[in-house]
Amino acid sequence: MGSHVPQLDLMRLVQPFGVTIDLAEGTMRSPDKHQVRRASVMRGYYADQEALERLIAERGDPVHYETFEKHVPEEYGHLVFGLTQLQPGVVGEECFMTKGHYHTVAGTSEIYVGLRGQGYMLMKTPPDAQGRSQCVAEPLVRNRLVYVPPYWAHRSVNTGDEPLVALYVYPGEAGHNYGDIETEGFPKRIFKVQGREVIR
Amino acid sequence: MGSHVPQLDLMRLVQPFGVTIDLAEGTMRSPDKHQVRRASVMRGYYADQEALERLIAERGDPVHYETFEKHVPEEYGHLVFGLTQLQPGVVGEECFMTKGHYHTVAGTSEIYVGLRGQGYMLMKTPPDAQGRSQCVAEPLVRNRLVYVPPYWAHRSVNTGDEPLVALYVYPGEAGHNYGDIETEGFPKRIFKVQGREVIR
Repeated sequence: MGSHVPQLDLMRLVQPFGVTIDLAEGTMRSPDKHQVRRASVMRGYYADQEALERLIAERGDPVHYETFEKHVPEEYGHLVFGLTQLQPGVVGEECFMTKGHYHTVAGTSEIYVGLRGQGYMLMKTPPDAQGRSQCVAEPLVRNRLVYVPPYWAHRSVNTGDEPLVALYVYPGEAGHNYGDIETEGFPKRIFKVQGREVIR
Repeated sequence: MGSHVPQLDLMRLVQPFGVTIDLAEGTMRSPDKHQVRRASVMRGYYADQEALERLIAERGDPVHYETFEKHVPEEYGHLVFGLTQLQPGVVGEECFMTKGHYHTVAGTSEIYVGLRGQGYMLMKTPPDAQGRSQCVAEPLVRNRLVYVPPYWAHRSVNTGDEPLVALYVYPGEAGHNYGDIETEGFPKRIFKVQGREVIR
């Protein structure tokens, strides 16, 4: 029959599936995997560390951001996808953000599609020999797709008043490298100063 | 600085970008690449070939389906994305569909997110030693994400009365293998018989 994959073990095939994602509400029906990151995991990330400690103490370590996924094998050939939901708020004057990460397989990209809310995808290159990185903030809002190219670390930042929700897709083998960002940080931070966004 | 990609040539980095995709209308602003497939490219695909010839003659070879993309390198590490828009209609009683394809790198997957319209993603495995394929039809409608796993050929079918529009994402190295489907076809077709969907 001229099959182009004659050696394929058909018993090992993954079955197709569908999942309901409400594009207006930014919700996934019946996720297999729900990951919750509370404010306390962000120790060391914000400029004003005391403000973060007050937030953790006063609000009982509230949910900071979450991801919702269906099960997909984390290996080459597959595409992992899910929804990320980042709460609104500030730590001091710095807008709520995710930890941010490179991919473990650094040369892999990621796509984000904004479904709800208002914010940015903050991206940076690995430092060069002088320790300098390029840094770019792309608006991440409803109806905006952001392309994170291979090698760029990325972090979402919520500058709005409601949760920032996006659909993400990345290659199954990509993996997450949080450690280098924990050490390096990003060259820019995003603040809300007297109601106005400031990137510096 | 502990960079995990010390050998990376920073001059060769692709820059991040964003693109506006209206999730309600199913449109992309300022695509770099617009591919149009007219009815005549579907010769040999529908069961009723005379009905297709009449459609081509009577309607002047109308647009059958289109894709809209932003430029992304078609190589490993990147993710190609775009919108596909398939017109509504029937050829005889068979619903309008795309040619369908395997990926050239067969073990790569694809994600479709339905934005508008009503239809199916029809998927099949490569034929086994007896020439038999598994075949699955997953509903492709607004608010439904369909996961096309590695190795599955896939074709979209419009069973509704308006264009079927979906956002797709696939690995940059995947490529398109149309030839095997041109030869093999799919084990199932989708018809509209007296207003009712029939898959057989």
